[in-house]
Amino acid sequence: MDRFEPNLRIPGPTSLPPSVREAGARQMINHRGPEFAAMLERILTGMKPYFGTSSDIAMITTAGTGGLEAAIVNTLSPGDRVLAVSIGAFGDRFAKIARTYGADVTTIEVEWGQAAEPAVLREELRRDPAYRAVLLTHNETSTGVMNPIPELAAVVRQLAPGALILVDSVSGLGAVPFQMDAWGVDVVVTGSQKAWMAAPGLAMIAASPRAWAAMQTATMPRVYLDLRAHRDSHAAGETPWTPAIAVVYQVDEGIRLMSAEGADSVFARHEACAAAARAGLRALGFELFADQRHASRTVTAAAVPDDLDWKPFNAEIKRRGLILAGGQGKLAGKVFRLGHLGSITLEEILGAMSVLEFVSISAGRAVRPGSAVAAAQIAALESFGVATPAVAGAGG
Amino acid sequence: MDRFEPNLRIPGPTSLPPSVREAGARQMINHRGPEFAAMLERILTGMKPYFGTSSDIAMITTAGTGGLEAAIVNTLSPGDRVLAVSIGAFGDRFAKIARTYGADVTTIEVEWGQAAEPAVLREELRRDPAYRAVLLTHNETSTGVMNPIPELAAVVRQLAPGALILVDSVSGLGAVPFQMDAWGVDVVVTGSQKAWMAAPGLAMIAASPRAWAAMQTATMPRVYLDLRAHRDSHAAGETPWTPAIAVVYQVDEGIRLMSAEGADSVFARHEACAAAARAGLRALGFELFADQRHASRTVTAAAVPDDLDWKPFNAEIKRRGLILAGGQGKLAGKVFRLGHLGSITLEEILGAMSVLEFVSISAGRAVRPGSAVAAAQIAALESFGVATPAVAGAGG
Repeated sequence: MDRFEPNLRIPGPTSLPPSVREAGARQMINHRGPEFAAMLERILTGMKPYFGTSSDIAMITTAGTGGLEAAIVNTLSPGDRVLAVSIGAFGDRFAKIARTYGADVTTIEVEWGQAAEPAVLREELRRDPAYRAVLLTHNETSTGVMNPIPELAAVVRQLAPGALILVDSVSGLGAVPFQMDAWGVDVVVTGSQKAWMAAPGLAMIAASPRAWAAMQTATMPRVYLDLRAHRDSHAAGETPWTPAIAVVYQVDEGIRLMSAEGADSVFARHEACAAAARAGLRALGFELFADQRHASRTVTAAAVPDDLDWKPFNAEIKRRGLILAGGQGKLAGKVFRLGHLGSITLEEILGAMSVLEFVSISAGRAVRPGSAVAAAQIAALESFGVATPAVAGAGG
Repeated sequence: MDRFEPNLRIPGPTSLPPSVREAGARQMINHRGPEFAAMLERILTGMKPYFGTSSDIAMITTAGTGGLEAAIVNTLSPGDRVLAVSIGAFGDRFAKIARTYGADVTTIEVEWGQAAEPAVLREELRRDPAYRAVLLTHNETSTGVMNPIPELAAVVRQLAPGALILVDSVSGLGAVPFQMDAWGVDVVVTGSQKAWMAAPGLAMIAASPRAWAAMQTATMPRVYLDLRAHRDSHAAGETPWTPAIAVVYQVDEGIRLMSAEGADSVFARHEACAAAARAGLRALGFELFADQRHASRTVTAAAVPDDLDWKPFNAEIKRRGLILAGGQGKLAGKVFRLGHLGSITLEEILGAMSVLEFVSISAGRAVRPGSAVAAAQIAALESFGVATPAVAGAGG
């Protein structure tokens, strides 16, 4: 397999475009010098439209989980009452962080595969509107579900106007529209290895004026993740601690590519790739795990059929150069996941479908040659508003 | 200046060797797959001789400061009595982290530029041996001082056998010998952008059996920095959270280069470059800031002379492609710092001296052409045990 570069189709890290890869090879610079300051400014300014905010954004050298921890420890105090709405492994993790730092956490556990219903949130906040914060997951990477953040945020803003809304959009932001200010969201976290087409290592966090004010009184301990230090240093064109410069180069180039493509095109591309992935996997006979009304546009989870021995099947897929992700937490062994975010193209989704078709047919599964590729192609065309011509033999 | 790559001579990030740069441009891989597991194993095994330990090492995606925070929060509980021995800005930071998380911190403040005297530590521990931990800085990057860790650790082990010894060796480890197990040190932290020749973004932390045991009862809150999660994941060839893969590639290559060179040669090269830097700066008329009995082998700080206007002088140095670091904290504007660690070569030190000579002479300072380069060269030769021939006109 060394002749080929594997097709990395996990929900992050994503395959890097050539110019992003090259950016990772640049020589180091002084992180307290003017070149770094200009780059930091480009990145944080360039990300604002994706966050949908005019507020300050901080860039922290950490995985997404560190970003979630920053969202919690900067805005809350031990004993604060927190409502965690969990729809999967990352929602559970967000709640666990708050609990670890001494928050009094109530969890709404949504069945995995489902989105959070605004009605359920409404009921809880009517019963008890005195929460200091509500934790929401935008895109739940473990289940392939995308929560309706505007609707959920509207419920919080109406019924618990004093509550902070902290959103994990590590694997959503940049790939789908987000309007933090308009939706009344207070903290949003994203990660470099997702939509931003870069290596892992950086979390970007935006905070509303309400969240910045909360930081003045929040007493959970923090030094490395202290967003106030980041804001102070940002004013001087720096980060408070030495940043992962190689990854900063890559994010800078990723945003340049996204800007050249245009945000709307980036969003449309993700939508088309997601539609293609879903249609292709269904044509292969896989049952999609997520409630399709809330299907993620960056990752699709499919159930491992009872009659499929996943390990040898996946080994064969891998041998053919396609790298998928398994299930997380309680879904280990029960689902597999196909990531379609970052620099993902329709060609890559079709390529993944062709491998899955080939391996399925070789394994004796009832799949018609070309059917998954065709179904994916048609779904992508439809996503772009192109009518499929009625040609004999076409269709999945 | 775009024709030249600047000579980055700050104490980290350091200039990267070509093969390390190229490693940063590799395509992403699944961080939960066998290729990553093999790489993680290579790195953590390859670092053990530099730590001088047989204990487990964890690799965390964070700047060095996050590594220091991990050392504190994993081993201590709020209210624990901590003795912080600070000899500069990074010692102060270490103490601040412990205080922020609720430790009861007593600080021995050593005059900046001086090392910690074992006698002073002995006096304090005789007065009060009931500390839960002692915080030490191995190499103080802000002042260019290297503490005598074996002597200091021996005092702690003798007088406060129950105390944990936590050592910041972010900018020391890998460049100079360290024997964590033999010296009785409990936690050691280092950073990828220092001796390891890689970009910033990773901190490596080793913990003694005593420190691993302490983690079971330590109650300071942590999730992202929790070393227990790192140890559990490491058993499966993974990190608990998505790592900065591009930097991991670079550290892997950096260690390969160090292994090819041999640890003793790496240490000797650092010693020679440090000697050359000190001799050259002295020949230029600069007063070295550190107590020379404890001069750092990775960074040299020199006082900015009263009769020198540093800003235009440094601008001219920079225009000629040499990037130095200014003073940190209360030394801002009072010292400048020359880093000589990582892939540093004698040629690069001589190059830095030639720029400093040129700019000094151009600025009308009383410097004899060639004198700093010659002094540096002689010091390096002496460091390697080569006698300087008595040639007419030689010498600084």
